[in-house]
This record gives sequence, structure tokens and C-alpha cells, in this order.
Amino acid sequence: MRPVVESGIAIPVPEQGAGRGERYRAIRAATLALAAPLSAEDCTIQSMPDASPVKWHLAHTTWFFETFVLGNHRPGYTFFHPAFRVLFNSYYNAVGEKHPRPERGMLSRPALDEVIAYRRHTDEAMLALLVEDESNAELAGVVELGLHHEQQHQELILTDVKHLLSRNPLKPAYHRQWPSTPIRASGPDWVCFEGGLHEIGHFGPGFSFDNETPRHRVWLNPFRMASHPVTCGGFMNFIEDGGYRRPELWLSAGWDTVLARGWQAPLYWERRDGQWHTFTLHGEIPVDPGTPICHVSFFEAEAYARWANARLPTEAEWEVAARNAPSAGNFLESGALHPLAAREHPADGMLAQTFGDVWEWTRSEYAPYPGFRPAPGAVGEYNGKFMCGQYVLRGGSCATPASHIRPTYRNFFPPDARWQFSGMRLARDA
Amino acid sequence: MRPVVESGIAIPVPEQGAGRGERYRAIRAATLALAAPLSAEDCTIQSMPDASPVKWHLAHTTWFFETFVLGNHRPGYTFFHPAFRVLFNSYYNAVGEKHPRPERGMLSRPALDEVIAYRRHTDEAMLALLVEDESNAELAGVVELGLHHEQQHQELILTDVKHLLSRNPLKPAYHRQWPSTPIRASGPDWVCFEGGLHEIGHFGPGFSFDNETPRHRVWLNPFRMASHPVTCGGFMNFIEDGGYRRPELWLSAGWDTVLARGWQAPLYWERRDGQWHTFTLHGEIPVDPGTPICHVSFFEAEAYARWANARLPTEAEWEVAARNAPSAGNFLESGALHPLAAREHPADGMLAQTFGDVWEWTRSEYAPYPGFRPAPGAVGEYNGKFMCGQYVLRGGSCATPASHIRPTYRNFFPPDARWQFSGMRLARDA
Amino acid sequence: MRPVVESGIAIPVPEQGAGRGERYRAIRAATLALAAPLSAEDCTIQSMPDASPVKWHLAHTTWFFETFVLGNHRPGYTFFHPAFRVLFNSYYNAVGEKHPRPERGMLSRPALDEVIAYRRHTDEAMLALLVEDESNAELAGVVELGLHHEQQHQELILTDVKHLLSRNPLKPAYHRQWPSTPIRASGPDWVCFEGGLHEIGHFGPGFSFDNETPRHRVWLNPFRMASHPVTCGGFMNFIEDGGYRRPELWLSAGWDTVLARGWQAPLYWERRDGQWHTFTLHGEIPVDPGTPICHVSFFEAEAYARWANARLPTEAEWEVAARNAPSAGNFLESGALHPLAAREHPADGMLAQTFGDVWEWTRSEYAPYPGFRPAPGAVGEYNGKFMCGQYVLRGGSCATPASHIRPTYRNFFPPDARWQFSGMRLARDA
Amino acid sequence: MRPVVESGIAIPVPEQGAGRGERYRAIRAATLALAAPLSAEDCTIQSMPDASPVKWHLAHTTWFFETFVLGNHRPGYTFFHPAFRVLFNSYYNAVGEKHPRPERGMLSRPALDEVIAYRRHTDEAMLALLVEDESNAELAGVVELGLHHEQQHQELILTDVKHLLSRNPLKPAYHRQWPSTPIRASGPDWVCFEGGLHEIGHFGPGFSFDNETPRHRVWLNPFRMASHPVTCGGFMNFIEDGGYRRPELWLSAGWDTVLARGWQAPLYWERRDGQWHTFTLHGEIPVDPGTPICHVSFFEAEAYARWANARLPTEAEWEVAARNAPSAGNFLESGALHPLAAREHPADGMLAQTFGDVWEWTRSEYAPYPGFRPAPGAVGEYNGKFMCGQYVLRGGSCATPASHIRPTYRNFFPPDARWQFSGMRLARDA
Repeated sequence: MRPVVESGIAIPVPEQGAGRGERYRAIRAATLALAAPLSAEDCTIQSMPDASPVKWHLAHTTWFFETFVLGNHRPGYTFFHPAFRVLFNSYYNAVGEKHPRPERGMLSRPALDEVIAYRRHTDEAMLALLVEDESNAELAGVVELGLHHEQQHQELILTDVKHLLSRNPLKPAYHRQWPSTPIRASGPDWVCFEGGLHEIGHFGPGFSFDNETPRHRVWLNPFRMASHPVTCGGFMNFIEDGGYRRPELWLSAGWDTVLARGWQAPLYWERRDGQWHTFTLHGEIPVDPGTPICHVSFFEAEAYARWANARLPTEAEWEVAARNAPSAGNFLESGALHPLAAREHPADGMLAQTFGDVWEWTRSEYAPYPGFRPAPGAVGEYNGKFMCGQYVLRGGSCATPASHIRPTYRNFFPPDARWQFSGMRLARDA
Repeated sequence: MRPVVESGIAIPVPEQGAGRGERYRAIRAATLALAAPLSAEDCTIQSMPDASPVKWHLAHTTWFFETFVLGNHRPGYTFFHPAFRVLFNSYYNAVGEKHPRPERGMLSRPALDEVIAYRRHTDEAMLALLVEDESNAELAGVVELGLHHEQQHQELILTDVKHLLSRNPLKPAYHRQWPSTPIRASGPDWVCFEGGLHEIGHFGPGFSFDNETPRHRVWLNPFRMASHPVTCGGFMNFIEDGGYRRPELWLSAGWDTVLARGWQAPLYWERRDGQWHTFTLHGEIPVDPGTPICHVSFFEAEAYARWANARLPTEAEWEVAARNAPSAGNFLESGALHPLAAREHPADGMLAQTFGDVWEWTRSEYAPYPGFRPAPGAVGEYNGKFMCGQYVLRGGSCATPASHIRPTYRNFFPPDARWQFSGMRLARDA
Repeated sequence: MRPVVESGIAIPVPEQGAGRGERYRAIRAATLALAAPLSAEDCTIQSMPDASPVKWHLAHTTWFFETFVLGNHRPGYTFFHPAFRVLFNSYYNAVGEKHPRPERGMLSRPALDEVIAYRRHTDEAMLALLVEDESNAELAGVVELGLHHEQQHQELILTDVKHLLSRNPLKPAYHRQWPSTPIRASGPDWVCFEGGLHEIGHFGPGFSFDNETPRHRVWLNPFRMASHPVTCGGFMNFIEDGGYRRPELWLSAGWDTVLARGWQAPLYWERRDGQWHTFTLHGEIPVDPGTPICHVSFFEAEAYARWANARLPTEAEWEVAARNAPSAGNFLESGALHPLAAREHPADGMLAQTFGDVWEWTRSEYAPYPGFRPAPGAVGEYNGKFMCGQYVLRGGSCATPASHIRPTYRNFFPPDARWQFSGMRLARDA
Repeated sequence: MRPVVESGIAIPVPEQGAGRGERYRAIRAATLALAAPLSAEDCTIQSMPDASPVKWHLAHTTWFFETFVLGNHRPGYTFFHPAFRVLFNSYYNAVGEKHPRPERGMLSRPALDEVIAYRRHTDEAMLALLVEDESNAELAGVVELGLHHEQQHQELILTDVKHLLSRNPLKPAYHRQWPSTPIRASGPDWVCFEGGLHEIGHFGPGFSFDNETPRHRVWLNPFRMASHPVTCGGFMNFIEDGGYRRPELWLSAGWDTVLARGWQAPLYWERRDGQWHTFTLHGEIPVDPGTPICHVSFFEAEAYARWANARLPTEAEWEVAARNAPSAGNFLESGALHPLAAREHPADGMLAQTFGDVWEWTRSEYAPYPGFRPAPGAVGEYNGKFMCGQYVLRGGSCATPASHIRPTYRNFFPPDARWQFSGMRLARDA
């Protein structure tokens, strides 16, 4: 058992019970800390239309506060640069024009330095506002949304830059130092859950996105869930058993995708001399069979489940099962920017590694909960309009900030997306 | 009020309580009757990858019986042509090679005549088998499946040939004669339904596809449904109110589709001299505001619902609401191959035009019911593998054979598909 | 040596010295004779955007006479169908709207029968006009152009239907009967030609297209030409020597095309059990090494020449060398719709198989001759506007009507086109 | 008349009669000087597959010397980085693997700093070699080739970075300072040239690329050439006369391109408030009607010529006409990185602005001269394999180093390319 050694990327974490200003400061600083190991060149390139340059993430998260907080709540606020309103608008039609998404990599200007100045300028105005206007509930809500938004982009910074670095034949690491971690792997087990009427969705005082509401009833048949996520070892068995060559294991759209893109393994995997290797943010390593599989699409997860004579859980099953699971896990702050093998045995009847390490695909399309109402105004575009053609993932990953995740959290990506830290956990009817 | 006059296309209908042989004969004859107004040239062209030539439909439905019935249940059966096994396999990987779907329009040979001979050859063997082997339950099940499969393709023959004819600047009609129909349009109303635990899905002796099972419980909040489908008049209001130009009304993927394809109206609509016209199987006609809207995608249906301050129903809501609706409607056999205005007032608390006229988009992704198991063997590919990226439609259309539809029937198409007779009905939370 | 037996396709040939009416009648009848072995279904499909349905060829050649002769020279002429003016316009912007080229295969209507009626209607009016207006020189010129235009489409009917039939897994033959032909193959030899100032291009009384004019001087260095076209045997050696795998043999754009399309052999070639087979209009046959290679692109011809330590001739070299070559050859009328091995030894200093069998790619881009002026009016669009991005082929093929070819004739296709009967002859500096 | 003031970009120019080492030093330094106004971020992005990042240009030109000079002529030379052999190979198949062209913008590493270190490392080795091995003629030839190669990439650095900057909504200038220049515009005139046998192509001691040889005879008819390139004023007349809307003015492939890309003006032109503006390396300016048109494709040049009742010259005509034209012009070193109006009246019978300002499209496809032989070895891939589908441009531009151009120089680009400084000069038959 190797001792845990933190890597050199110091991610600022707000202390428990910190005030709003302090939380703002810590979360904003964490974003910059993630960019610290990168050069201006690293921060400028867009490696595919789905990904964005790090520089863009740094600017867009700032744009969010400038647009929805300072612009609305600070009379006479001077915008840092008039063109940024368009350049760094992601998809808010209600705000106005947007620079086209696939063009985000055309922007050598503003320079990284100017974007950092933009962050500083905005942070100063934000911190002043937070002090002055402490009791404004509407303001508090938008600031909170902005901070969770910022944390989402922290994860995207890592997954997007990982994709970029993987496209470079030099295979550069984001950060060489690999934290040593104690591994006490345990085989998967089945945990049983009772059927009946359950409630899922967010309710109560803490923050949630609008898509987690309203809390509502669902009827579930009794079901079982695997105690652990599927591992790389399991997935290698699937590959050796012809998993990528057997159409009967796949959804029709999945099989079409396998053929069209020539998929033969998870993203970032490469076979050399009879050994699978994978590209990580810490450089290339041999695949460790005991660690959770990641960088698989919904299609691959669903096919693997069929091969394993199981299925993916629905998001309702997942949420019910995850409720009393331990919330600790391998998150962004650990410095291990890759999934790790299980560090602890779960208690009886409890799932392990539920949070952190890898997002877990569910069988549920990302759809509105019964009675869902998007937030009013432009921020209503945050979630609702994407409820089509995507599938829900749950639980967070090794790139998710620890304070960002909760059992009701719904992440979502199209079924062919693989560049997130996406894995899976199996389910079966009881 | 004009009297109903049947058009000249005589669709054979099996009598109530007819034996299996008679039903087989009638349904197979109905398919040929649909091809009767068409030339060999009309039957040969594939107008887009999603559509198939009529000749292919005629052959593929025959292939289904030859492959799954005669090949499996008739020892020593001589296949009509060895190459047809591949040429007319639609998507059954378990059966073997398939002629690629986008290449279906490359087949000038076999000629239409040969395909009709193929049908005759197969029908003779089938009818002999049905007489001999009356008590074989497994056989009976596959034959029944084949007949419902045949009926699905009857509808596709009409929608596919409509698409082909619409691509011809001469705008040829499939069948000029337009049945006169008594119209007693009535404005839409809201019908209330109670929440609670409901059961949906097929159960019992009659035929259903595997995707309608198992019957299972769902929890529903109380809801309201419109008594009638949305009409062309309503949709024209949506267009005039800028419906196709306002991103806030659309799902993000829907808005992308509107921009990419330049949609400004439903498929087949054209505006000339201030009047909307639509292409129908009976030729081009001015749009009648009192008739149900059709040839709209899920995206358009969903946007319309938002504009109307309503939403699409889930498929569970639809099924619960449709249970006690009258089953009569404008189906294929009426000779009116276009949706008609409501002919009868519904009773209190009852939906009108639930079946026939237009398929109604629901908000539900086409997903497996809890506990779903595909049928064993190759026919297991019939439905299950398509459960991704599509949305459920309910109720049948003017091109659906009357005996083919039922309240639990789940049709499904991708959210951008428009060439089916697809419309919608609005829902609201109670 | 097998006796020559004509195949069953009787191609009408105008007698020497026949009057204009008789020539018109014979050439128009030849087009119909080519369509005779085909069904209406065969005549309807468009197998790729570059090819057109046979039905379209039958109609478009008729449109040419109706538009440029009857419409302009016959006051009060009633057009057969107003929509045909647009439907069958190929590319004449000056005439007005055109049905888009890739949509030619969407036209199940007009039916083949109607197109034949259209031909009859137009032929009657044409023959009447030709009798009445015998001395009108302008009229005579356009009619002559129309007849050569018709002959071009006769060749395209064969190459386009060959492409269509090749896409059908049933590999149907256009015409099974294969003419027996005496073969006396002789190895290739080099024939020397003197350098100096030469004149090329058309001059004098006979018909030529505008692109063959004006006759003009060119300076040529002394050169050598192969006595025979490159054979399939030679090309098989190229393949075995890695021709399709060695980038150094190819133009850069050619190599890109090889990789993008996965070319490994000429079009229609397929290797089975160690033997090359090729699809022909008479069905599939083993490749005969003694016959001229065909269905190769400019890129393949150019690469082969480099491999053979030679080069393609320029079109000026070709024309100078072809001047005193025998004009007899294997043309459309022979009934052998595939290149044949050399039937006669050429005389000393004379090229063999110069005309017929295969079109021969030259190294010359299709460009205007010095002083070139397109014909005035809409027919000026016939040739001039295509003078970009294409290469010149010379000599005619087995699908070219014998009376259509001449030494100054310039055919042209893009460098990646392979569905014509295109081969090559090598040249070298002296 | 404004005084000429050099802009701030100091381009080192080797002195007349400088030794090889000094020339090497000066030309290499000029490349770096061009990158000096750019940030590392500016140097990293690839704005379209046709263009390359500046960093790539800096590395690839270095790779050329390392691969073809040091690798071949310096036993035991240690390559700077083994991966660079593949990363910075442009298109030399004989050298081995290449990083794919459209992926050049994925390389955030090596950093710009490392590339500059790579240049320094290579320059040291090169300068040592040049001193030691002064009398090696083969070496001298490759070094000379490498220097002209470097100069070609100097021009590409400017055109590629101009394209990148133009894609940025902030419209950043490469270099704000705009040199004041004396303008004495003079209207175009026609200059006559005699027909007959002429010789073109390079012959003699100075450097030329292989594609300029061998010198050979061509027959020309008498012709006229415009004394000046076509101006922006002339081109604005073309636009106003419907030039981009009239198919009869265009080659067929050109018209297809106009429609497919929606061209309505030259690249970088934008109309605002009734005034044309153009983006330049010095920022956006109003279009000056007296300056030569640039950033037009061959298609636009050819269409303009037809509209002007003229034609493009052949490259032979251009070379014959340019022979006694003054060689002075607006080149890279002037600091005016945009075409300028004519500064001097030409003498009688002499063309003006023949060299510099804008490359002039000719009507000649880029084809091998009679007797052309590519250089032996890998550098034989430099020119010959691109002789297909491109058109010849002559005369150099405002971004061409003055010492790089000569009357026999053949530049070449595809007919739809617009991002070079490409304009035209009209010709007519005498």
C-alpha cells in the first residue's frame, strides 16, 4: 500500500462555513490553479467542436458573472470590453449574438494575459458587490449559480485539455506528478434495493440546478446494483470476447457509430506489444485492470451491460441506491486526475465509489421531471433546452470539485460522447 | 356537409372472426392494392435514405415470411432466389449480410413483376403451411408478427411514395380521387385526468409487439389533455407569430435543425400568393385550417406546445387518457389519405380523434419498459435495438390499417423526422 | 480465330451520302435501339450524381431539338409539355431554370412511354421542318450540332447504365450476347514523330465542335508514341508491383484520391480466387490481359506512365500522331461493348487502335485553343464553360458511334472520373 | 504625394554579393522578423486546412535544412528532436511519415520558444557546415533550394496569419503602422507584343526551381497586355454590374463555387454603409479604387476578364511580355503589406507593376514543361507532383521577398484559392 501523496496542483478549497466572498474567491482561484500548469499556447487551441480552449473557459465563466450579476445588479457597471459580450456568450440566445462554437479556437486575441486581467477586473467588482449587497436573495441565487457554473467548467477545462494533449504525437502530460494512492480493490457484489413508490429530485434549502426539480414520486420495481463501477479488467474481457465486433450486443445507433468511427477500445486506449496503454492527464500509463473504466460512451456502456447479462440503471434507481452511500471519493482536489481503484470496502447494502472517480451512465434520457419549470429569464436557458437526445450521468468524477456534487445531480451528454470521465455501474432486476 | 364517398383504392379487409388463412390473404392483398396505382418506375426509386422503394417494401415483407416462417418451419423449402436473402434483409444482423439501406434504390432488377412473382410463390407456400400446421403456437406467433409487420409497411409504402412524388416538380398525385367527408369541426377543449398509480403496457391475449410489454405501474400527477389534435389553423398562428424565428421556443437541438435545414413550415407546405398549400397523396390542396396538423417533427411539436403555453403529454399520460376514447377513426381503409377534420363531438371527459388521422408525438423517449425482454432469436432485433434517440408517437394515422392500432401501440421516430403523418395533441399539468 | 458475329443489338447506321432527314432518322433511332434491352425501371434510376437515368438522356436529347431548333425556327410550334423545358435542361443557364442534376433520378414521371411519345412528337415536327426548310444554313448547323449531341448521349447511355447495373449485387448484363472477334494481338512498339511547328485543330467543311477550333500552330519537340494502348496485362503488372501502394508514382492529388476512395484496381475490377474479373455490359468476365485497359482515371493513367518510365502524350502530340492512323476501329456499331485486343498490325510508323476501343487520356488540361470563341447564343454554353479542371481524352471508344469521331475531337473529364471507357497510350521524348 | 516611410518591421536583406553564410543568416533572420510582431498564441492556431500555424512554418523551414542538408551532408549530426522528423515533414513521402496537414493546429507543444531554439540549434550547425564545406556543389544546390524554400514560407506566414486574424471578430492588425507611399495612378493601356516562336523557361547560372525548366520554344499569336493590373475600382464596377449574379460570365466550376460559398466580393471585403472595406495586415481600411485588386480566385479573375471583353494571358504570353519590364516593385521589404497603386508610369511598350504588389493569375494550368524532369531524390517531390488542378500565377506580391522573384517564376494555386495576394492583368488577341 503506497502512501497518498498530493500532487503539486494546489486547488484552493473554501473552508466549511466560509462566507460568500470567501467561497467566491476560493472557487475562482481554483479555476486559475487548473490553468497554471498550461502555457498560453495550450490554452488557445480548440481540439474539436465539442471542446473549448481553456482560455475560453476562463473568459466565459467570467462573462457569466459580468452578464448575469454585474450587468443586472450593479447600476453603471463598466463592462471590461464591449466585444466580450458576444465573444464569450456560450449559448444564451436571450443575451444576444454569440461567437460560433466551432470558432472558439480562432481567437489568438484576447491573449491569455488579457483574459486573466478580465477575471481580475470582474472579481474586484464582484467582491465589492458581495460585501455591499449581502442581503439580496435574488443576487445570492445568481451568484451561487455562477459558482456552480464555474465548477462545471473546472471539470471541462481538464477534460478538454486532456483531449487536446492526446491529439499531440508528443503525448505531453498536463501534470507529471502522480499521487501515490493506497489501493485495496474488492470485487463487485450485488446490492439489493426495494421497489415501491420513491421520491427523487432535489428539495430543501441547499443549492440545486433547476433540472433536479421538482422532487416527485416514481414507482420502481425491486432491483439490484453492483457495489462497484465496472473496471478496466472487466472491459478488457469484453474486448477480448469480441465486444466491438458483435452487433447483437449493441443498440442499432451504437453499432452504426462503432462502424463509422472504427471504435475498438475506449477513448485514449492504445494497444502496443500486447498491452493496453491509456493516455492520462499525468501522461501515458499501462491500463490498470483494477480501476474503474472511463472514457466510454453511453453506447459502449449499454453494450457492455448486455454482454454482462445486466443492464444500466435508470437515474431513479441510481438516486435511490446512492442515497445512503458515503459521499467521500476521488475528486478534483485529490490531485489524482484519473480514476483510482476502490479504496474502501462499502458497508453491507451500500454502494462503493458512488461519488467521484467516474461519472456513471444511466439508461435514462435527459428529460424534464414532471412539473419542471425552467428558471425565469436568460438563465432559464441553462438546462431545459438541452433536454433532447442526451443521457443522464450521475455521481461525479475525479475531475469534479468535491463541493459540486450531490445525489440528485444530473449530468448529461450525447450517447456517443467519450471525452468526459464517463464509466458505468451495472444493474439488474431483483 | 358533403357525403362520404369512398375513393377508388379498394383495400381488402379481413372479416371479423376470419380464419388465419383468410386474414393472411386479405392483409397481403391489401399491400398489393396499395401498389396498384403505381407504375414500375414509381416503385423503383428511393427518394432519401430514410425511405425505401415500394418494390423493396413488397419484397421485404415477403422476405420476412420466407425467412422467419418458411425457412424455419418448412423443412426442404426452396427459397425463391438465393440473393434475395441478402437483398431484402432490412436490419437483421442475426440473419446475415444486408444490402446497404441507402442502396435500395439501385435495384432496377429484380423487376416489379419478379417481385410480384416472389410474393405469389411465397404466399402459396405460406397458405399451404397455414392449413397443414394449424395448431403450432410458435408458428402462429411468427405469422401474426409477420402480418403486423406487413401492415407497418403498408403505412410506409404510402409515406415513402408520398415523399417521392413530392420531389417531382410535376407534383403527381398518388390517387386523384378525394373522398368527400362530412366535417363538423369543434374547437378543442381540455379534458382532466386523475393522478396516482396507473398501469400501462400490453397484457392479455391479443397481439402486441414486445416493446409494449411488460405491463407495469407508473405514478402520474393529475393532468389535462386537449380534446382534439392541434389543427393547421393553430399552426398557422404559430408561424405568423414568428414560431420558426424565435429560438426561445425551441429545444437547442431543434433550433439547430431549424437553422441547418431552413425550416419555415411543416413538410410539404408551400406558400403562394398569400395562401398555404400542401402536397397530399391526392394532389396539392390549399391547407384547411380545421384539419389536424401533420408532417411536423418532434421538434416542431415541442416548440408549438411551448408557444401554446402547454406541453406534449408523456406516453403514459397519453395511454391513460386514450383508454376509453372511441376506437373509430380515419384509417387507411377510408380512402382519405390525408387527415380530416373532426367528424364527431367527443363525449364529456373523452378525447376525440385519438386514433387515426395523425400520429401524436409524445414527450417520451422510446425506451425499454421496466423488465423489458426482447423476443428470443433474430426477431428480437425487431424493436429493442432501436431504443435510443427516438421519440414515441401514439394513435395511428390516416395511413394506418384500422386493425393494426391499439391504445398500447408505440410508434417511434427520430425527433427530426417529418415524412410520417405525424402531428400532436397538447397536455398541461392539472 | 473466332468469326465475328454481330450481337443482337441492331444499331441503325445512316448510309453514306444519306440526306439530312435520313441521317436524323437513323441517329435518333440508334438512341432508341440502345434503350431497347432495358426495362422502364432500368431507365429510371440515377446511380450517382455524375450519371443520368437513360430516360433522362432520351428526353434531354429531344429537348435539345425542341429548344434550339423547333422553338427558334418553327413559329407557333407547340411544346410537348411546358414543364419539360425545365426538367430536361441540362446546364443551359441562358435557357432558364434547370432541374438540379442530382435530382434526375427522382422522376418516376414522366414515364418511359411518355418520353418515347415526346421523342415521336418532336421527331415528326423535326422531319417536317427538315423537308420544308432545306436551304437554311443556320438551321442546318444547329441540327448537325443536335445530332452530334445525340451521339454523345448514346455513349453516355451505355456508360451510365453500365454503372447502374454494376451497383446491383445480381450483376445483370445489359446484353448477354458477346460478339466473337478475331484476335491477333501484337506487342506494343514505339513509333517516332518529328518535332517542329505543327498545326492542330479543326479546319474545313466537315462538322466539328467549337472547342476544336481555331486551327493553330504548336511547336513540338520530337517524340515517340506506343503503337498500341496499354493493355490489362500491363496494368496487372503495375498492380503487382505495388502501383496502388507507392506514393512516389502518383501526382499528389491522385494519391489523395487513391487513399480517400480506397482504389486498388480499375473500376469494375474484382479479384476472386487469384483471378481478376471485370464487369462488362455483357456480364462479368475474367480480365483478358491482351485487351486495352479501361475504366481508369487520369490519375491512374498518369501513375502507370511514370511507373513504365514513360509519360502521357499531350493532346497536340496525340493529334499529330493520329493523323495518318487508320480510322477503322471497334465502335458502338460492332456490338462489342467492351474493348477488344488489336485486330490488325499497324503499318510501319503508324499507330494501331487509335480510334475506338478506349478513349485515351492525354496530359493536357482541357483549355481554350488560342483565339477560341464560343458559339454565339445559348449553345455557346456547350463547351467553353467547362474549360477548367478537366483533362482531354482522344480517339473514341467501343461505345462511340463510328461517325461521331475524328482526329481533332476533344473529349474531356475530371481527373478522377473512371466510368467512361477511358484508357491510355504511352509517349516518350524522342 | 506622401513621403515613403518604412514601417517598423525591419526585414533583414542580404547585401548584394554577400557570401553564402551571410545570405543564410539574413534570410533566416527575416523569417524570425516576420514572427516578431506575433504572440505565441498567434503563432499556434491553424485557421483552415490550407493554412499552417506560423510556428509550423518556423519549424518546417528548419526541418528542411536539417533533413536535406545536415542529415545528408553532416555525418553524425544529432537531430534536435526525433519526433520533429515526422511533425514538421510537410509532404515528402520519401522522407517517411508526416503529421497530417489538418492537424498542424493541434500542437501547443513544442512551444514557440522551443521552435526558436530548434532554429538556433540548426542554424549553428548549418553555419558551421557552410564554412567547412564551401566547395561542395551538391550541398550548395540544396542550401540554395532551402533558402528559396524559406522565402516561400515567409510569404505564407503573412498570408496565413492574415487569414487567422481576419477570423477574429476583434479584427486585430498584424502591424498597425502603414507606410506612406507616393501614389501617381495612371489608367491602364494596352501594350502590343509580336507573335512567333518564343522561348520561355529558365536557362543559365542563376537559381530556379525545377518547374521553370527546361527552357523551350512556344508559338504565340500576336497579343496585347494591359499595362497595369486590374484595380479595385474596376472590380467594383464588375460587382455593381451584377458580376457575382450572372452565370454567363463564369466557368461552370466557378459558378458552382460562387453559389456554394455565397461569394459576393473578394475575400476580406465587407460592405458597410455603402462603402467597401477590406481587412489588411495593417488593419481594416476603406477599399482604395486605385490599387490593384487582390484576394480574388482564378474563377473571379477569369470571370472579370470575360466581363471586360478580354481574357487572362497564358503564362507564356506573360513571361514574354514581362521580360523587359522593370524589376522594381512593392515587395515584402517595403513594409507595405498590401498592394499599392502604381508609383511610376511605364515606358512605352512596357508593362507596369509587373513584379510585386499582386500575383497575377494566368489562364495556364500548372503543367510540366516539355522535357521536364523533377530533381532526383526526395526534393523531386518539391514541385512535380502538384502539377494537376492548379493554375499558374506570375510576378510576386507585396509579401514576396524581392530577391525571390524572377520573370520565369511559376507560382501555382487551385482555382478557388483566395487567401494569397492574387490579382490579375488582362490580355487580348492583337
